[in-house]
Amino acid sequence: MAGRILLLVLFMNAVFFIVNAVPETCPADLGGKCGEDGEWEGEFFPGVPKIKYEGPSSKNPLSYKWYNAEEVILGKKMKDWLRFSVAFWHTFRGTGADPFGAPTKYWPWEDGTNSIAMAKRRMRANFEFLSKLGVDRWCFHDRDIAPDGKTLKETNSNLDEVVALAEELQGDKIRPLWGTAQLFMHPRYMHGAATSSELGVYAYAAAQVKKAMEVTHYLGGENYVFWGGREGYQTLLNTDMERELDHMAKFLEAAAAYKKKIGFNGTLLIEPKPQEPTKHQYDWDAATTLNFLRKYGLLAEFKLNIECNHATLSGHSCHHDLETARINGMLGNIDANTGDPQVGWDTDQFLTDVGEATMVMISVIRNGGLAPGGFNFDAKLRRESTDVEDLFIAHISGMDTLARGLRNAAKLIEDGSLAELVSKRYSSFDTELGAQIEAGKADFEMLEKKAMEWGEPKVASAKQELAEMIFQSAL
Amino acid sequence: MAGRILLLVLFMNAVFFIVNAVPETCPADLGGKCGEDGEWEGEFFPGVPKIKYEGPSSKNPLSYKWYNAEEVILGKKMKDWLRFSVAFWHTFRGTGADPFGAPTKYWPWEDGTNSIAMAKRRMRANFEFLSKLGVDRWCFHDRDIAPDGKTLKETNSNLDEVVALAEELQGDKIRPLWGTAQLFMHPRYMHGAATSSELGVYAYAAAQVKKAMEVTHYLGGENYVFWGGREGYQTLLNTDMERELDHMAKFLEAAAAYKKKIGFNGTLLIEPKPQEPTKHQYDWDAATTLNFLRKYGLLAEFKLNIECNHATLSGHSCHHDLETARINGMLGNIDANTGDPQVGWDTDQFLTDVGEATMVMISVIRNGGLAPGGFNFDAKLRRESTDVEDLFIAHISGMDTLARGLRNAAKLIEDGSLAELVSKRYSSFDTELGAQIEAGKADFEMLEKKAMEWGEPKVASAKQELAEMIFQSAL
Amino acid sequence: MAGRILLLVLFMNAVFFIVNAVPETCPADLGGKCGEDGEWEGEFFPGVPKIKYEGPSSKNPLSYKWYNAEEVILGKKMKDWLRFSVAFWHTFRGTGADPFGAPTKYWPWEDGTNSIAMAKRRMRANFEFLSKLGVDRWCFHDRDIAPDGKTLKETNSNLDEVVALAEELQGDKIRPLWGTAQLFMHPRYMHGAATSSELGVYAYAAAQVKKAMEVTHYLGGENYVFWGGREGYQTLLNTDMERELDHMAKFLEAAAAYKKKIGFNGTLLIEPKPQEPTKHQYDWDAATTLNFLRKYGLLAEFKLNIECNHATLSGHSCHHDLETARINGMLGNIDANTGDPQVGWDTDQFLTDVGEATMVMISVIRNGGLAPGGFNFDAKLRRESTDVEDLFIAHISGMDTLARGLRNAAKLIEDGSLAELVSKRYSSFDTELGAQIEAGKADFEMLEKKAMEWGEPKVASAKQELAEMIFQSAL
Amino acid sequence: MAGRILLLVLFMNAVFFIVNAVPETCPADLGGKCGEDGEWEGEFFPGVPKIKYEGPSSKNPLSYKWYNAEEVILGKKMKDWLRFSVAFWHTFRGTGADPFGAPTKYWPWEDGTNSIAMAKRRMRANFEFLSKLGVDRWCFHDRDIAPDGKTLKETNSNLDEVVALAEELQGDKIRPLWGTAQLFMHPRYMHGAATSSELGVYAYAAAQVKKAMEVTHYLGGENYVFWGGREGYQTLLNTDMERELDHMAKFLEAAAAYKKKIGFNGTLLIEPKPQEPTKHQYDWDAATTLNFLRKYGLLAEFKLNIECNHATLSGHSCHHDLETARINGMLGNIDANTGDPQVGWDTDQFLTDVGEATMVMISVIRNGGLAPGGFNFDAKLRRESTDVEDLFIAHISGMDTLARGLRNAAKLIEDGSLAELVSKRYSSFDTELGAQIEAGKADFEMLEKKAMEWGEPKVASAKQELAEMIFQSAL
Repeated sequence: MAGRILLLVLFMNAVFFIVNAVPETCPADLGGKCGEDGEWEGEFFPGVPKIKYEGPSSKNPLSYKWYNAEEVILGKKMKDWLRFSVAFWHTFRGTGADPFGAPTKYWPWEDGTNSIAMAKRRMRANFEFLSKLGVDRWCFHDRDIAPDGKTLKETNSNLDEVVALAEELQGDKIRPLWGTAQLFMHPRYMHGAATSSELGVYAYAAAQVKKAMEVTHYLGGENYVFWGGREGYQTLLNTDMERELDHMAKFLEAAAAYKKKIGFNGTLLIEPKPQEPTKHQYDWDAATTLNFLRKYGLLAEFKLNIECNHATLSGHSCHHDLETARINGMLGNIDANTGDPQVGWDTDQFLTDVGEATMVMISVIRNGGLAPGGFNFDAKLRRESTDVEDLFIAHISGMDTLARGLRNAAKLIEDGSLAELVSKRYSSFDTELGAQIEAGKADFEMLEKKAMEWGEPKVASAKQELAEMIFQSAL
Repeated sequence: MAGRILLLVLFMNAVFFIVNAVPETCPADLGGKCGEDGEWEGEFFPGVPKIKYEGPSSKNPLSYKWYNAEEVILGKKMKDWLRFSVAFWHTFRGTGADPFGAPTKYWPWEDGTNSIAMAKRRMRANFEFLSKLGVDRWCFHDRDIAPDGKTLKETNSNLDEVVALAEELQGDKIRPLWGTAQLFMHPRYMHGAATSSELGVYAYAAAQVKKAMEVTHYLGGENYVFWGGREGYQTLLNTDMERELDHMAKFLEAAAAYKKKIGFNGTLLIEPKPQEPTKHQYDWDAATTLNFLRKYGLLAEFKLNIECNHATLSGHSCHHDLETARINGMLGNIDANTGDPQVGWDTDQFLTDVGEATMVMISVIRNGGLAPGGFNFDAKLRRESTDVEDLFIAHISGMDTLARGLRNAAKLIEDGSLAELVSKRYSSFDTELGAQIEAGKADFEMLEKKAMEWGEPKVASAKQELAEMIFQSAL
Repeated sequence: MAGRILLLVLFMNAVFFIVNAVPETCPADLGGKCGEDGEWEGEFFPGVPKIKYEGPSSKNPLSYKWYNAEEVILGKKMKDWLRFSVAFWHTFRGTGADPFGAPTKYWPWEDGTNSIAMAKRRMRANFEFLSKLGVDRWCFHDRDIAPDGKTLKETNSNLDEVVALAEELQGDKIRPLWGTAQLFMHPRYMHGAATSSELGVYAYAAAQVKKAMEVTHYLGGENYVFWGGREGYQTLLNTDMERELDHMAKFLEAAAAYKKKIGFNGTLLIEPKPQEPTKHQYDWDAATTLNFLRKYGLLAEFKLNIECNHATLSGHSCHHDLETARINGMLGNIDANTGDPQVGWDTDQFLTDVGEATMVMISVIRNGGLAPGGFNFDAKLRRESTDVEDLFIAHISGMDTLARGLRNAAKLIEDGSLAELVSKRYSSFDTELGAQIEAGKADFEMLEKKAMEWGEPKVASAKQELAEMIFQSAL
Repeated sequence: MAGRILLLVLFMNAVFFIVNAVPETCPADLGGKCGEDGEWEGEFFPGVPKIKYEGPSSKNPLSYKWYNAEEVILGKKMKDWLRFSVAFWHTFRGTGADPFGAPTKYWPWEDGTNSIAMAKRRMRANFEFLSKLGVDRWCFHDRDIAPDGKTLKETNSNLDEVVALAEELQGDKIRPLWGTAQLFMHPRYMHGAATSSELGVYAYAAAQVKKAMEVTHYLGGENYVFWGGREGYQTLLNTDMERELDHMAKFLEAAAAYKKKIGFNGTLLIEPKPQEPTKHQYDWDAATTLNFLRKYGLLAEFKLNIECNHATLSGHSCHHDLETARINGMLGNIDANTGDPQVGWDTDQFLTDVGEATMVMISVIRNGGLAPGGFNFDAKLRRESTDVEDLFIAHISGMDTLARGLRNAAKLIEDGSLAELVSKRYSSFDTELGAQIEAGKADFEMLEKKAMEWGEPKVASAKQELAEMIFQSAL
């Protein structure tokens, strides 16, 4: 009917094509063909084989050079250290739109609608992609995988329909690493979700998280993530920060309670980010988030999902925020990506820096691995990368880089000289007095007496250049 | 017909609603009503009066507290110093979308289409807005004001139709401060326009600029702007920077030639920006752009349009880039906005910092004004500001801030003590030897002889704190 | 005696002149003259009168235009809101040295030595400075005010000698706002003090803090500050962050215990800074420091000293970190300075931005003032400001700016429209359901039911531009 | 004589020890011993052998793993591609001082004086260091290598004395890569040298550069460098930027004239840096410096010395600024170091990132090498690295990293697939119309005709992920 305004559907950094009905015929590019029921027939990625390990000398872009899933490193299979996951939103809903540009991706299986049929076809593509990559985990937002309805009820029912298919496609092997609710794209969340100034929005967000948790649980998800993209402020001039933080705490408390109620045993994860889209986001970095959790007595209910690009935007190295989470016993998952060191916004690039990947893997090994967490590729193709094969190349590159990081970290650990350099630096505390200090039994008077007795303390070189040389040699 | 994929139409940082036809009835919110022909009747901003100067003590948000258009400051009317312009794209096509969020603005006159009828209605709203603000200039991109057609020819014809209306609505008084071509939003420009790796895109961009220049000329525009949002790179790994820069130079050369050919006497302006959307934009800042223009012999054909938020993103104060342009004789126009000092992307906020505005006006006064350039409000409402009146409040605030900056700058100039402090600092060069040095007649041997003769030179305090005290006292 | 290497004495960002003996005669510049005993006679600042309030229209740089100590604002005298303090280190030990440059300041009373006699003369200058400014508080590091000896014992005894004089000069009226120990300049602290990898350094630092606390207590200091300039790391490759943080906690625990033992009732303050001199400092920002204090059970023993330039270096506005401290009940003191928004290191400039000062004062008023804390001018003359009068101009400018901020903040509070705008935004929580949510009694099931019932929530404009307009109008 | 104030002598980011006379005996640590004349006997680095290439599997920190001087890569010996140089100031005058900390380095050959005898001993250490490293080039500031005298004449004579020794020690093989004048440390230069507001300082700087050029010429230096650490401003409020830039141009013009006069054929190099110590430095980055040189007609007389850490501080990758210099025909030399991506000041670290080194070497190979320029290690030990061997480890690590970069770049070039990816992207311009465009013969009318004819242009994927995969595989 003429004159009707269509629902504009938006997803993660993306705007998708809109039609007023399911297409009559299925798209024909790139060999896609449909059966009589309009459904996609054959493969979504017809030219792409199952990706295999071919070793570092291979020139084949569609092969792993460093990631050998079953190979054992430091007593564990690579796949168990790395627990890779594909992010549905970037890989299947990313369109290449940016603040100054329209979508650039036109995948052959997309028909330009946001229909349930399209959602299902896309889900099938997702599972073929996982299977060809040899990856057993995936992550999703509720609104990525199924279209909004006219009411929350209808929206939930759309979600159920797509989730049922996903469950079927998962089979025995594939599970969500985590699910999450998208609480930032819709205009209703413009002032926040749990921290919105509008009570109705708080309630709506609660309902949405409730459903997303149920769905994650149903699919056998191992974790559930909170990323508070709108939980922050644009200016303090119009904001009651204290009240908003109180609301956020109550919201998370209720979420933890509901998790228990439904018997979901997955870990609840908070993902820090300093800013963007808001000027200040309450989960600024690992330390800020920990302060919040401690203040409100929520520490036992949550862990952290550290994203490398978020860490660097907050002024830290990724390794720093991983270590901060780890030594607080709170490292639960890693969003494996990287930013551009000269750029002040979230670029969500696939990590291809081997040095950084080695640092990341050092933290993971120290943590004894990440399970039930893993590495989620919260990373997207560049806007200008428009070939279907680019999706594979990007993931292979990201997986190989972390695999290489794992191999390097293992080399460093087996060599032992870097660890020795560190422990030697602190050896003066491996003494009786050191033990007293560390037990809180050395008061200022006693210490002053010692200081007077000893005279000027000896201070050794920190050997940073040697540490860097050892580190680089392992790359 | 069912099954057709609709064209997705996107504009500056914005995605608008899409329908497959003109709405049958006109929108009814906020008192809008339509005549029999479906056209808008009455005012677009029914509650808003013509904005008047009421002085600093007024509490009325819809009044000027500092901007008094006809008041004479330093021998010129305020309106002639300030030459304000409204940016059509932010004010009438901005939707509040951001990389993580859908549109939030639903102006009552919008029917959700990108039709020509809608474009015309919007243009009428624009002129009512200008008239109520008391602003005589506006700026536009070709693609903001009229919808794309199926072919370039049809697109041009759409543009002509809307431009004809704009010309009529302009009357005697209103003119474009400048026009420009939008060469960044459409996917065809993803690798650049003049610097695209695809020759077909270079040609398309040339055709688009040709038309936009013609249209600007037809409307009596006083300037024409180039902002090269995609003229840059995402990574040097896949880029031939030298070849791209050569192409850019040829493109601008051809533009300058075409300008002359059609008898357009407006100034051609280049607008530097360091990055975003690309990782590196070739017109990084004023100095970089000047280097480019000098290298390719284009200095005489162009001036600069300095945007404050772009200057700060490139690591400079806005005042610095204005002064850099000015002392090179190249300050042509100002995009009046500001960024957030803690944020690494373009926030395009209305400038409300009186100190910064005073600095800006010092440069403008030194430049003898900006004409035929002016101040274009390349600034947008925050995503969360969704009332129609917010459009007025934001512009009034921006205008008042610059007006206050002008008053303060005049105070400083009339007082004279800051200028005196500066000229006194350099007084040792106001001597015979100083004149010789400045004329390039003092060689190293002569200078060494003097240095030996004089012994250790006296060096006076720079008096920065005193300069700051004088400056702040004028605010 | 020939052949002896003199001790190089360095202070805060500064290198002072060194001689091998007290000068035979006292310096003669600027009218300084000495008595028979070599001691300074007459005034240190002979041309400078007692600074008086002359009001905003005064052109006299040596007068207050906005700070009127006894004037009552919002029920409290300006001097009681502002509780200004002069930082001994910047004002009396700052030399203008920077990483690329030698000292530039040659105050007339300095004889180039770091002798005790010089320390005493300098202390007299300090009290004349305080008295002429009309400021009743000062802050110091132990090593600023008295020279190092050959042993810790001798160093302590030097300190005692100078402190005895300070106590005498303080009279009834003047007291330290706070004292602190300088644990960053000496090479022994290169790996940290409490977090040094060397136990001997930990003990030495404990002894130094013990003494600095005693001395602060003796002088009637109201607070004691910890700034951990070396408590951090240069690279994680050679660092055991977890062990270092544990040591820091034990150290602060012992400090708190010692405070009680000696009956010192002053507040212990931690001053966050993100980095510089180290790449990462453990007290990164307010939230990071609070997380640390909570983790180690130290929250009740400490408050925060927020420095504006440190806040901006950590990616926050100063106002943000003040509010973060305040709403955690931890705002104890402010180091009043500012940085350069385009510069990535600590510039410690006097705050002269009236807008920023108004934000700061809003936090202070909400906090009910800062007492027993106050505003310490942790700010220094620019390296190129070398006149004695520049010291006065800088402090007057800083004091006037905060005084003006106080006046503006009071105006805003009295006007009430900004506060009203904010509280109105959250009014949907001022309801029964809001109260339930805020009491933690609204579970997800109940909220979902409400959300289903209500349909799409209404979301009002955030009115940021209006808030900015109101704010700016008060300046 | 008692009571005299000694001259405080400062060097590059460093403060050295001061005595009032030559020490009576020579320092005894680390096996140093002196002959009867008080001169150093035996080796300065007794435990360190001549550093040899041992290949990547070596665990010996005092060996090259990648740098094999005589090995031929792409038709040239590694030593001829790399042309390494040791920076005298960091390696022999760096003390570990920072804005918050005193010196930490106590090299055994230092006696705490800034005497000529000490300068000579240090020079001998330098040549032993060069010889053990196997490096044939060194760089120096005038004031690093010889002490200031009481007058300029005496200073020049001190310099001559030390230079005569250096000339002797250089022998046939070793030469300065470049010399330069230190125009930033002394207080006289606090407002700039060529851009000082004081004419006397301008003259003094001219005399100093004149002498430094003569000395560089005398020693057979291949280049002469200008780094304008103080040529900029701290605030525009007290600065006449236009006049200062004019002065700088006249100064450089006179320098170029003097170079010719004395028959010095070395290249004059300008080293861009954005800021620090000043807020804004006139040679901000490569493009800014090129604009300046073009404006003042100085392009033919100068080339650029690109420093990686400076490039990143200006918001560019090092590779970007190298390429900018290169495609303008202006890449003359590289200051090989790196910064910390999270740090906003110059850290001058040795480059150990293999990826970055590979990018750097790609530019160098494209440039056909750097001769007569080379790689100067403008890099320093961390403040906490205090062992003599750390000096060797740091340089070896830096040299190996660039050598590895060279090997990787050669691999990429020999493989060819990355270059092919790039040239293929632009192949639409390798056509007749492309040639016309590039020759400036395609006007807008002709291009519009083509665009109309062709319809929507095809735009291929940019293949960034593939480019990154190829690049990383070569590491």
